[in-house]
Amino acid sequence: MADEGGLDAALVERLTEAVSGAASTAVADREAVAHDLWPYALIRDRGGRPLPPPGAVVWPSSAAEVAAVYRLCAASSIPVTPFGAGTGVCGAAVPVHGGVVLDLKRMDRIVDWDLEAGWVTVEPGILGQRLEDAAQARGWSLGHFPSSLPCSTVGGFVATRSAGQLSTRYGRIDDRLAGLRAVLSDGRHVHLRAQPATGAGPDLRRLFLGSEGAFGTVVEATLRLHPLPAARVDAAYALPSFAAGIAALREAMLAGLRPALVRLYDPDDTALQAGHLGLDAERLRGFSLLLTSCEGRRRVAEAEATELGDVCRAQGAEPLGDGPVRAWYPRRFSLAFELARYLPAPGAVIDTIEVAASWGRLSAVWQAVRTRLAHRLFTFCHLSHGYSDGACLYFTFVGGGTEEGATDLYAELWREAMDAVVGAGGTIAHHHGAGLARAAHLHAELGEGGVDVLRRLRRALDPAGIANPGVWEPVAL
Amino acid sequence: MADEGGLDAALVERLTEAVSGAASTAVADREAVAHDLWPYALIRDRGGRPLPPPGAVVWPSSAAEVAAVYRLCAASSIPVTPFGAGTGVCGAAVPVHGGVVLDLKRMDRIVDWDLEAGWVTVEPGILGQRLEDAAQARGWSLGHFPSSLPCSTVGGFVATRSAGQLSTRYGRIDDRLAGLRAVLSDGRHVHLRAQPATGAGPDLRRLFLGSEGAFGTVVEATLRLHPLPAARVDAAYALPSFAAGIAALREAMLAGLRPALVRLYDPDDTALQAGHLGLDAERLRGFSLLLTSCEGRRRVAEAEATELGDVCRAQGAEPLGDGPVRAWYPRRFSLAFELARYLPAPGAVIDTIEVAASWGRLSAVWQAVRTRLAHRLFTFCHLSHGYSDGACLYFTFVGGGTEEGATDLYAELWREAMDAVVGAGGTIAHHHGAGLARAAHLHAELGEGGVDVLRRLRRALDPAGIANPGVWEPVAL
Repeated sequence: MADEGGLDAALVERLTEAVSGAASTAVADREAVAHDLWPYALIRDRGGRPLPPPGAVVWPSSAAEVAAVYRLCAASSIPVTPFGAGTGVCGAAVPVHGGVVLDLKRMDRIVDWDLEAGWVTVEPGILGQRLEDAAQARGWSLGHFPSSLPCSTVGGFVATRSAGQLSTRYGRIDDRLAGLRAVLSDGRHVHLRAQPATGAGPDLRRLFLGSEGAFGTVVEATLRLHPLPAARVDAAYALPSFAAGIAALREAMLAGLRPALVRLYDPDDTALQAGHLGLDAERLRGFSLLLTSCEGRRRVAEAEATELGDVCRAQGAEPLGDGPVRAWYPRRFSLAFELARYLPAPGAVIDTIEVAASWGRLSAVWQAVRTRLAHRLFTFCHLSHGYSDGACLYFTFVGGGTEEGATDLYAELWREAMDAVVGAGGTIAHHHGAGLARAAHLHAELGEGGVDVLRRLRRALDPAGIANPGVWEPVAL
Repeated sequence: MADEGGLDAALVERLTEAVSGAASTAVADREAVAHDLWPYALIRDRGGRPLPPPGAVVWPSSAAEVAAVYRLCAASSIPVTPFGAGTGVCGAAVPVHGGVVLDLKRMDRIVDWDLEAGWVTVEPGILGQRLEDAAQARGWSLGHFPSSLPCSTVGGFVATRSAGQLSTRYGRIDDRLAGLRAVLSDGRHVHLRAQPATGAGPDLRRLFLGSEGAFGTVVEATLRLHPLPAARVDAAYALPSFAAGIAALREAMLAGLRPALVRLYDPDDTALQAGHLGLDAERLRGFSLLLTSCEGRRRVAEAEATELGDVCRAQGAEPLGDGPVRAWYPRRFSLAFELARYLPAPGAVIDTIEVAASWGRLSAVWQAVRTRLAHRLFTFCHLSHGYSDGACLYFTFVGGGTEEGATDLYAELWREAMDAVVGAGGTIAHHHGAGLARAAHLHAELGEGGVDVLRRLRRALDPAGIANPGVWEPVAL
């Protein structure tokens, strides 16, 4: 019985056997994995024009079952889209060309702790928060805190190259991944053993970081942990301008300071945050709020905080004590959900866009994006994830128009924002992946040569062309 | 006129045109680029059985000339081997299958300084020391100090994924590379713009890090700099055993301390170093010497040094002051050359092998390699390049036998060492690349699946099979 996106019944039967019965073609199951939290898809749902669901969903419970699914689908040229918690926001997990969604939620085991190395090995479907809780119960931490931590998976972290709120100190998931197992789209297994560092040719782990299902599926990851830090020193500052804050963080990062938390809000975002953080918005008008935490061994954390304070004061910062930072921590995972509450309203267009640029280009990127968006929606921005040479800018835009025009407006805003970032010399993505949202701008990011390399990699690692074939390719939905 | 390894005269003529006349088929020129400093090749030279030289050497002066050389060679299925300073020690730059050596020494310009970002953009043939000198003249540093710095190139750093003496703080070249331009073996250009970080799909820069010429040639690199640190705090310690030193460094690195210099010598190496560093070898018998430097902002460097001292003392360390570290710095680039002086002696077999392992496996790797090698040659070892989860072990072996048996002995020692490392759970390479030296053990390192991925990448990026085709493939020389 084939409906829209339906699959051959004999194939469904064999897929069902391959995953020990854990498969479904029921409409409700298929609709549940028709897309991730890409706002474009949510807006379509809201307007009664949902993206088409896949033909089937399978829930493998082992790498062997994953491989069996790929082999069956490769033989029939059926697309396979890996799916974790489905909380990605750029449309990486969207079965654009139908086929099978490989839902990894049953593969959620903690396989091994090696606390001599500080490693934990897990299956991809485990939720970040569950893993962090298990680590903290042992006195350790992943050091990886995307704001989606309670509702996103380790497989998703790896597939989209996520970063977290403390990545300035602990690095993005790329830096936390010591080893992995993957299954390619022809069912072949790849095992890159966990190591602190290796130098035997190119690091093949990096192929799978950011791969978004385009080569196959990560079926196991070994992540680096660290013991819970002995001390944390919080400090907030009011900088006289966003540019002054950027200048302070540039000096701090180039000097090798490595605060765990760095969040610099532009004046509009400062006005929004102030009330939640016990600050007087009126008194901070025009200022940029900076939240910092230094952590680790007590003396080092204190020394870093002292030096950071000196650098900030040299840029005219006014110290605000540790209160605003302490008020921020309990809200750290709820901010995104507060925003998402507004999305069901007819006509609403809400999203975030994270990009990055070198210190010298950050102000230009900030201005360019604001100029393009701010006359149409309320747009605010904070800087996070400091590197020696630059940082991430995280824009939020909130507004709307008619419900009929919502998807067009959404697409236009993204196009304008990406054009602005490219024009000002930034990179189009920092830590939400490329997905479908950025497909049209990969050419501007990677150049003709880079896109050609990416396509060659796909053909080489997925010769059947079934591994999430829609991702990274501009498509009219 | 074709001699051994000779090329078609018409092709040579076209190659010569392509590089504006800077080409040669003279025997002396070809012999000069017949191999890098891979000791196996040096031992063959010494014994009068040199590796065969390539058919021609070309010295391009631009990316366009590099592309022209590749296009000509691809059309005639002629191998192309990139060559920098030729100081690699694992045989990455060896034209095993003859053809053309692409010598990049003329492409040695500094293209651009962006000191707002802390970036310098260079051509691949520039020597590391020349670049470091230019940076220091501006108050900046690359933070990258392989002991070959005076005689190795940036292109070589990238192609072999090098690390330096201060990489524990500043990261290996992988971490220092912000962007690059490459030419693939079909002459296509790839430009991955410098960015502090990006998340738009897999990071394609990583394909070229460690690529050893197997995909094409890096023709430009943008590297991260940092301002010269305000302070450096040196401290040496005598640890009661190598294991105690490993335990101390494990605790320090897991706590997030980030000393720039970390060198822990095993007891045999301690005995060798003591005299040069103003220490009494007799008094240190059985001890492991640890040299450390913390640098950066003064208060942070001092706090790190204090915490590091506490960690070491908890493992029974005796402080030796800063004298040994201060004595080490002036000799930092000459150690390798002191050893190399012995290689011309008939029968001599001398080399270094750098590997890595997690904290829990380091002692086993150290013991395993020593057990296999120490009964045949004098073998000593130091630990360097600390990570949160492990470190590099750097073995040196010195000895010999008959000149006739020297290459067999050399090959056997490497085989034994690599087997020992794999058996004890380490990685076969840390920062000298894979080259020909490790080709036979790539299977053990990457598994069948990993080797298959590597071969697929080669076919995808080098369909003509001309890009340093010998590297990574076991070959009887």
